[in-house]
Amino acid sequence: MKNSKNDNTYSYTLGITLTFELLIKKSDMAVCIYIHSKFLNANNYDKLIDLANEKNIEVIHSDKIFNILSQKENCFVIGKFKRYISRLENNNHLVLVNPSNAGNMGTIIRSMIGYGIHDLAIISPAVDIFDTKTIRASMGSIFQLNFQYYDSFDSYQNSFPNNEIYPFMLKAKNNLANTVFKTPCSLVFGNEATGLDDSYLRFKNTTIIKHTHDIDSLNLTIAASTALYELTKNNFKSC
Amino acid sequence: MKNSKNDNTYSYTLGITLTFELLIKKSDMAVCIYIHSKFLNANNYDKLIDLANEKNIEVIHSDKIFNILSQKENCFVIGKFKRYISRLENNNHLVLVNPSNAGNMGTIIRSMIGYGIHDLAIISPAVDIFDTKTIRASMGSIFQLNFQYYDSFDSYQNSFPNNEIYPFMLKAKNNLANTVFKTPCSLVFGNEATGLDDSYLRFKNTTIIKHTHDIDSLNLTIAASTALYELTKNNFKSC
Repeated sequence: MKNSKNDNTYSYTLGITLTFELLIKKSDMAVCIYIHSKFLNANNYDKLIDLANEKNIEVIHSDKIFNILSQKENCFVIGKFKRYISRLENNNHLVLVNPSNAGNMGTIIRSMIGYGIHDLAIISPAVDIFDTKTIRASMGSIFQLNFQYYDSFDSYQNSFPNNEIYPFMLKAKNNLANTVFKTPCSLVFGNEATGLDDSYLRFKNTTIIKHTHDIDSLNLTIAASTALYELTKNNFKSC
Repeated sequence: MKNSKNDNTYSYTLGITLTFELLIKKSDMAVCIYIHSKFLNANNYDKLIDLANEKNIEVIHSDKIFNILSQKENCFVIGKFKRYISRLENNNHLVLVNPSNAGNMGTIIRSMIGYGIHDLAIISPAVDIFDTKTIRASMGSIFQLNFQYYDSFDSYQNSFPNNEIYPFMLKAKNNLANTVFKTPCSLVFGNEATGLDDSYLRFKNTTIIKHTHDIDSLNLTIAASTALYELTKNNFKSC
């Protein structure tokens, strides 16, 4: 579990798809891209080089760095970028309280961007949003996200007093399937292992995704994505 | 990618939670449990031993096997069980066509059991359902699942001609948010990277979970779990 105030200055996109997303969506933070010799004959080599040149990003041919940064055998392109500060907007938010799994956070970000929710609040302690596993699981959609770390839920809530709070928890009063969301709202989810503690029962809109007693709980990525789906599905109804 | 006709005769539950699920839900397939010396003073040691005795399962104290079977530092209990054959029932089904990620399959199984859908058809080639990663991601709910491998979608469909087929694909006609399911039904999902091919457009109930163009697609576990939620949510409405 790391804090957002991380020592490292840089992070990396491991793979061609993520590196394209970096160059297209967040090129102002890109430092350089590394190309492995095995990528020289790839189909989209020219496209990548043209894009890097267009965005004025240095291209470095080197195989060494791949041994250091990537455990994946089929990773032949790496993007290096500066970690950046981001700010939440006044809008609907997802709030993750003490998330501990980088891949889960990336999967949730992918769902958020998919459903048009662009603002993620993270309550520390929490996993590093620029962990390469988060970036990979997000499929690069992280570069379209606004995010902000807070030391406590109260400090988050003080920043957005007008957002209606929906804590998702097993002891909740309301069934997601019957919920009509009052917006702007904040969908709040706890840690993978522990969920939200009972202090969140003070909110009037505690919500549960009902399931059988044959499992203890739904997976966090599933619960958060299902809530996002319910919140936004009317936006897509006429499609 | 393995077939269900696997060489191995056994698989393993890595960890205390999964091993409890094995002993409670599928003790007839359990062969023995291994206990690491670090578990001797654990809170639920007595409970585990009592359960193993009650079910007539051999308990073996050994640290060696943990180095072989588990990469996790905090795994101190392992259950060994016989791979078993299972059969689908006439009911609502989830169908995974060529799933390639063991963890994803486990996460989907956890959602299935959570929403009361107990029958999973798997079209080969496909990942091994008894991969220890599947078992872990299922949180042990796999022991409540009926499953069956088929060589082709057609052979699956011939076995259940009365099930209404809902292929989930990006080129689909119908929006999940507007769908009223005709049951018994089969929710069909393609491979993580490639989805379902165009041959599935022949079915009248092709379905899409609408999202923005800012992502290429939703994660497979998210898509399948959201469809399961929509299919079953009325069963939980009065809760």
